[in-house]
Amino acid sequence: MDTPQVTAKAKVLGRAIYAGDLKLAGMLHGKVLRSPYPHARIARIDTTEARALPGVKAVLTGEDAPANLWGAHHKERAVLAKGVVRYCGEEVAAVAAVSEEIARDALDLIRVEYEELPAILTPEEAMDEEAFGIHPGRNNVAQHIQFERGDVEAGFAAADLIHEATYTTHSQYPGYMEPMATVASLDPDGRLVLYTSTQAVNLVRMQVAMTLGLPISHVRVIQAATGGGFGGKIVEDDNQLLAGLLALHTRRPVRLVNNRLEDFQAACASVPERITLKLGMLKDGCIVAKQVRIIAECGAYAGLAGDVMHVSAMRSDNMHRNPNVRSEATLYYTNNPPRGAFRGFGGTQMQFALNSHIHTMAEKLGLDPVQVHKLNALKAGDVSIHGWHIGSTGLLECIDMATEAIGWASKRQRVKASGIKRRGVGMAAAMHVSGNRTIGNWDGSTLVIKINEDGRVFLISGECDMGQGASTMLSQIVAHELDLPLADIHVLAPDTDVAPVAVGTLASRVTMSGGNAAIIAARKARQELLSLAAERLGAPHDALTLKGGAVYVSAEPERRSTVAELARQHIWRHGGGGIQVAGTWDPKTVMHDDKLYGNIAAAYSYAAQAVEVEVDIETGQVSVIDSYVADDCGKALNPTAIHGQTNGATVQAIGWTLYEQLHYEGGRLANGNFADYNMATADAVPMLRGGLVESNDPNGPYGAKGASETAILPGAPAIANAVYDAIGVRITDLPITPEKVLAALRDKQQQGASHA
Amino acid sequence: MDTPQVTAKAKVLGRAIYAGDLKLAGMLHGKVLRSPYPHARIARIDTTEARALPGVKAVLTGEDAPANLWGAHHKERAVLAKGVVRYCGEEVAAVAAVSEEIARDALDLIRVEYEELPAILTPEEAMDEEAFGIHPGRNNVAQHIQFERGDVEAGFAAADLIHEATYTTHSQYPGYMEPMATVASLDPDGRLVLYTSTQAVNLVRMQVAMTLGLPISHVRVIQAATGGGFGGKIVEDDNQLLAGLLALHTRRPVRLVNNRLEDFQAACASVPERITLKLGMLKDGCIVAKQVRIIAECGAYAGLAGDVMHVSAMRSDNMHRNPNVRSEATLYYTNNPPRGAFRGFGGTQMQFALNSHIHTMAEKLGLDPVQVHKLNALKAGDVSIHGWHIGSTGLLECIDMATEAIGWASKRQRVKASGIKRRGVGMAAAMHVSGNRTIGNWDGSTLVIKINEDGRVFLISGECDMGQGASTMLSQIVAHELDLPLADIHVLAPDTDVAPVAVGTLASRVTMSGGNAAIIAARKARQELLSLAAERLGAPHDALTLKGGAVYVSAEPERRSTVAELARQHIWRHGGGGIQVAGTWDPKTVMHDDKLYGNIAAAYSYAAQAVEVEVDIETGQVSVIDSYVADDCGKALNPTAIHGQTNGATVQAIGWTLYEQLHYEGGRLANGNFADYNMATADAVPMLRGGLVESNDPNGPYGAKGASETAILPGAPAIANAVYDAIGVRITDLPITPEKVLAALRDKQQQGASHA
Repeated sequence: MDTPQVTAKAKVLGRAIYAGDLKLAGMLHGKVLRSPYPHARIARIDTTEARALPGVKAVLTGEDAPANLWGAHHKERAVLAKGVVRYCGEEVAAVAAVSEEIARDALDLIRVEYEELPAILTPEEAMDEEAFGIHPGRNNVAQHIQFERGDVEAGFAAADLIHEATYTTHSQYPGYMEPMATVASLDPDGRLVLYTSTQAVNLVRMQVAMTLGLPISHVRVIQAATGGGFGGKIVEDDNQLLAGLLALHTRRPVRLVNNRLEDFQAACASVPERITLKLGMLKDGCIVAKQVRIIAECGAYAGLAGDVMHVSAMRSDNMHRNPNVRSEATLYYTNNPPRGAFRGFGGTQMQFALNSHIHTMAEKLGLDPVQVHKLNALKAGDVSIHGWHIGSTGLLECIDMATEAIGWASKRQRVKASGIKRRGVGMAAAMHVSGNRTIGNWDGSTLVIKINEDGRVFLISGECDMGQGASTMLSQIVAHELDLPLADIHVLAPDTDVAPVAVGTLASRVTMSGGNAAIIAARKARQELLSLAAERLGAPHDALTLKGGAVYVSAEPERRSTVAELARQHIWRHGGGGIQVAGTWDPKTVMHDDKLYGNIAAAYSYAAQAVEVEVDIETGQVSVIDSYVADDCGKALNPTAIHGQTNGATVQAIGWTLYEQLHYEGGRLANGNFADYNMATADAVPMLRGGLVESNDPNGPYGAKGASETAILPGAPAIANAVYDAIGVRITDLPITPEKVLAALRDKQQQGASHA
Repeated sequence: MDTPQVTAKAKVLGRAIYAGDLKLAGMLHGKVLRSPYPHARIARIDTTEARALPGVKAVLTGEDAPANLWGAHHKERAVLAKGVVRYCGEEVAAVAAVSEEIARDALDLIRVEYEELPAILTPEEAMDEEAFGIHPGRNNVAQHIQFERGDVEAGFAAADLIHEATYTTHSQYPGYMEPMATVASLDPDGRLVLYTSTQAVNLVRMQVAMTLGLPISHVRVIQAATGGGFGGKIVEDDNQLLAGLLALHTRRPVRLVNNRLEDFQAACASVPERITLKLGMLKDGCIVAKQVRIIAECGAYAGLAGDVMHVSAMRSDNMHRNPNVRSEATLYYTNNPPRGAFRGFGGTQMQFALNSHIHTMAEKLGLDPVQVHKLNALKAGDVSIHGWHIGSTGLLECIDMATEAIGWASKRQRVKASGIKRRGVGMAAAMHVSGNRTIGNWDGSTLVIKINEDGRVFLISGECDMGQGASTMLSQIVAHELDLPLADIHVLAPDTDVAPVAVGTLASRVTMSGGNAAIIAARKARQELLSLAAERLGAPHDALTLKGGAVYVSAEPERRSTVAELARQHIWRHGGGGIQVAGTWDPKTVMHDDKLYGNIAAAYSYAAQAVEVEVDIETGQVSVIDSYVADDCGKALNPTAIHGQTNGATVQAIGWTLYEQLHYEGGRLANGNFADYNMATADAVPMLRGGLVESNDPNGPYGAKGASETAILPGAPAIANAVYDAIGVRITDLPITPEKVLAALRDKQQQGASHA
């Protein structure tokens, strides 16, 4: 049901408390000194002057940092650099002072002698056998994945058409409204308490405890209001670790809030990948063989980039009935900033390649790419080549809905304009997961419901809302199950001290796992209410109705007790204690085995997008003038929220495809601000359109799946395909800048001329 | 087991956060203008000047206060006085300003025109039929209790000795280290959040919600570190209501911390009672009839004073095998400050009378009062005349232990010194409850146990530690049940949003109800650990041992899993979710019926005290030179804590008996500070001695009962009896001041002279 976000009022009134809004008694302000070099030896650090500045309470360097290294997979990164810096922006020193201004001034007084070292700035340099190892004693391969299923050579041998091409995808800054921010303090028992902007309080707690050498219970993580994450606020950033370290050293609260430049330097942007894709098809478009080679770059530290690459290497195999697939993917260290998780988590990169490829091959075969997708699409009930059980799929409906909305059939056939502004249409389709059994062997969620004496309901969960609507979704489910007004449901901020463990907001898992846990908990609470009412009203359970805030005898509605009365009664009577119940749900999924076979998600979601673009052949400028995204969310628990998320994803995809680009000069970021790093602004975005497909997943809460993360995946290839449709050039190297368009048009003209 | 308080380290290091330590962003400071008259009409309040003072953000008067009146039983008290003030100190206006100094200055700028009215300052004036009603339309009786069981007249007729006397007890200020303090703020959803010094977060939440007209769920109460309560911090004070009101009006956080004078004016001191006791005994000391008449004073508003008087009227009946009892007790309004709950809760008043009386009558009968107590004492298994089931009693052992320790037999027989300093010994015995089924019909407690991945355990409960050791007790129980080190147990501060409902810390109920809930929860957690281990180690439950932080196969201790491993496994595996269990315990007690028959507590605890005093017959000064308190705590879960509490109770009793006295001049408190209100200081207290009797209660956790509240009860009569033993005069009017001693000695001499 269309429902405004339950967090909206506090936000629009300016009352939501973000970490940067928090002021604690005696609070200090932190600032971080970052390396100006992509690779250098730290010969000497002199903090004398900085320490002497009045108001400075701590100046920490690598010597003060714990011996433990951190990182999502490889523990390889120091909280503060020790002896060497490996990227421009790496944390070298941290200051805590009584004001942000003094802390910033103190940074200027820290004298660091660097001995600059040669830097590796591309995967190509990294893979050179002669290249030095960025991490001592290791070559520059951070991760390598290889798998093959079926008989790929036989597949290609049987193919009527084989096409191979290489696609290059670049790194995108997450661009959330609120930069990384943490306030760290010590509680009276000396435990470290972090109020932080995060997607995953429990993952933060694990990482901080492990790295700072504290027992996990001596770290408390409370989610502050969070202004967006997009994958960038899982656990790949140093912010919480540094804030914690400063608080432990000063024994005072420390606020560490990135400004925008700092956030550009500190946050993981997405993983750039060069994907060489080779597909074999029969004449009818049936895919018979698929070979993928990926060169990915994680920058100086691997973080979650290996997992991202893993997704690129295999997820798209599960969309089509691929009989023979082979992937090889290699992640390289470079002296660029670390790359990592980002909305879509590796899907965007590969779907750009795959959807571009399908269009190209369809054209060669004289087919409509829509037909090719449909022909190959897995159906509900199918098991993919990697073992994934497709419980529901709205892929075909998404494709139909998006293409029909854009006027696909007629616009593809139209005679192309011959003027300066050329229009074309493109489409793409994609899939995503709802959950992912990858952390330990649990992808579940637990939710506690507490009914207060006034009949209002509190939800205690560790799943984080970073703006996407988790709190609203959980509230809606509980309100629905207990037939209470939404305003009577209150979701507590995730707090590791009190909430059950939750994995957090990633892999589009919260609606699936958190939502199912909410249903279970709410139904337990409902049973308790009915039992209490049965006793009080002297009627059996099945003669009772819970509706409108009361339980009544179905046949005699005047025999009733309100939920408030029942809740109160359950406390203030013999054997009372109040209604406080927990629901836990863990999907019956299967982790990948050694051969990467498994069924990692409870459900798989789908989306398709069709766009119309206009290309100015004089300037090379591409404008998206229409866009329709069809999102298979299983069941739309909150259409308003899904449209909002889908539109956001669409804009982020447009930005990645056409505008955003991190510019480096010798490894140094040159455009770490919103004036020079061009996110898509309102004038670059058409009135966005979209529709929902409800494929009713058997595992989802009321059939729902993760919504809208899928929606970021088809944007880039849909636009690239539309550009091709408009001007006949195929851009395989993102972003599609005017320069590249003009260059491609020139190449095409020259080829045309030379062929003539 | 002797265990330092788990809260001690934070306190001695100055790290505990009391409400007064809390600073929130934008926080204002509150101050309260109080009536200078015991009774007056408020003709006009002009706040213009106060409002105009720079830095003042709100000046509230009765007009700004909610229409709802408050009070534990009678809803009769306005948050800010409306039209009339009924005691000197009543809240007339409240200010919030940017600093405490400005708030204080603003009070001086509020112009209040009072029309002074005649004031009733004693119960005698209040009961005059011609007296005006302090509350309009009512007479001055706030509460009246009357009951009779058996045949009291027949009892007196059968008695060999009847003695009647009147005892006067005065009001004692609770004298905790930390005055009342609250920080109130609004959360982003506009809910009212109170960090407060309290004994009972849930009772505060109920009162604040009801009075300020908010749904109960829109009020969140979090206990700040609390520096003592002694009954004064249950719900009889205006502090939280005013802080909340100021926060709602200013929409900013407001800190309202009493200074000591303000606290003397604002806090409820104990209920003064005049008790006329008539006992009939047989020659052997057997009590055959008891008649009690009580005139009690609640001051201007009744609060909990009626409950206190109720306890005075009936609790001591349950200590002895009384066959015939009759009580009549009347609580009067006066224009003095409100009186209310205080450690011992009415027991102190009555035990002073009863124990003084037994000594007097024993002497008349030529008996040792010890014999009289023992002869009449109820035994374990007995049911008292009011229906109370005595599950355990260590009364006789307590009496023996205390009197033997003081050298009772020999010192009573000794020839009295004839010099200026005369010594004497006295004893007294008393009983108390462990819990009290009075609020609604629930006296239970729920405790949630959460085991973290490092094997450490979090306890979530709404029961408050105000210094007495609840957190330590709960930690000890869970540590014991799970065989973990105490340092691995962490008790969260009570927070009504997350903790299950708890009644709070009153009626010595927390060890009984909270402790039993902790056992139940811990045993559930233990079962979960054993089930996990059984599966992991491939051995049945009964072959496993949980010990030293691990579960192992009893016969093969090397086959083991640590608690941390099991807890981690329980999260990060299929169907996981973590160990989070709740235990609820509610005693099988019975509320008093209309005729006051019932069984209100799961257990009854006992104490006896023997003291030696020295009386200076020239100055009248009484000094306690030795004291031994024997406390029947059922089972001493933490002897160190019980000794500490018992010693504190002993000192508070000494203060009440000999030193402390609230002086009023025309209804106005004249000594509201620690220089003029004399609490017993170190030089007034001997090296306190004490011992524990473990009567092993069948309902108690490991046999434990509420400890040490009983210990305040025998102090006053033991001292009065010792004074009598020393100098032959009986003081029936507390405190036993030098003036009264000298006057009594003069009377005695005159009587001796006139008899001679």
